[in-house]
Amino acid sequence: MATAPEGNCIFCRIRDGSIPSKRVFEDDRVLAFEDVDPKAPTHLLVIPREHIPSMNELVPGQEALVGHMVLVASQLAKARGHADGGYRVALNCNADAGQTVFHLHLHLLGGRRFDWPPG
Amino acid sequence: MATAPEGNCIFCRIRDGSIPSKRVFEDDRVLAFEDVDPKAPTHLLVIPREHIPSMNELVPGQEALVGHMVLVASQLAKARGHADGGYRVALNCNADAGQTVFHLHLHLLGGRRFDWPPG
Repeated sequence: MATAPEGNCIFCRIRDGSIPSKRVFEDDRVLAFEDVDPKAPTHLLVIPREHIPSMNELVPGQEALVGHMVLVASQLAKARGHADGGYRVALNCNADAGQTVFHLHLHLLGGRRFDWPPG
Repeated sequence: MATAPEGNCIFCRIRDGSIPSKRVFEDDRVLAFEDVDPKAPTHLLVIPREHIPSMNELVPGQEALVGHMVLVASQLAKARGHADGGYRVALNCNADAGQTVFHLHLHLLGGRRFDWPPG
């Protein structure tokens, strides 16, 4: 598993603890922490430990890792009490979607109603 | 693989061909088709063939299937020319997020800029 820090990737540094975060979950493949600019009562990021810049760089063999990110998000949403009300998961790729940190991350948002379209 | 139609699930019926759709991709695990109410130049849905109502019902063992949905979305985004510009993936669970069809589905949106927050 590639876990070496990639340059100045802020999420690699959060993974390694050299930048603080409010971590809410971690295992051997992923970690989850509070978004520093929350857009909902629950706004967590789930990232792989492995440095993958974006969805563009996903390759066959990484399906289970990406799916695990979604299942972890679902479990976190349930733990926060959002299973019945609902929650939204979003992944952004590149500038049109507003991706600002180029380490794959999943946004989990819950605790309010979300409009459509999603941005 | 459970592919039996579940009641009147519209996406099971799209899968089975009894409701028409503009299908753009399919394999043994997933299919992708045009959203009937598109919110971007590219707006596709990626669904598992298996009837899973929502993210709430995901269980361990389904990670690779869910990750495959994301990788297929990424490939479709690239095929539509959105790799460089960018694209957004969204998954909605229950009423707060506006989920209206209770068969797990991933929204792929591309071809314009997307605001933040995502709804």
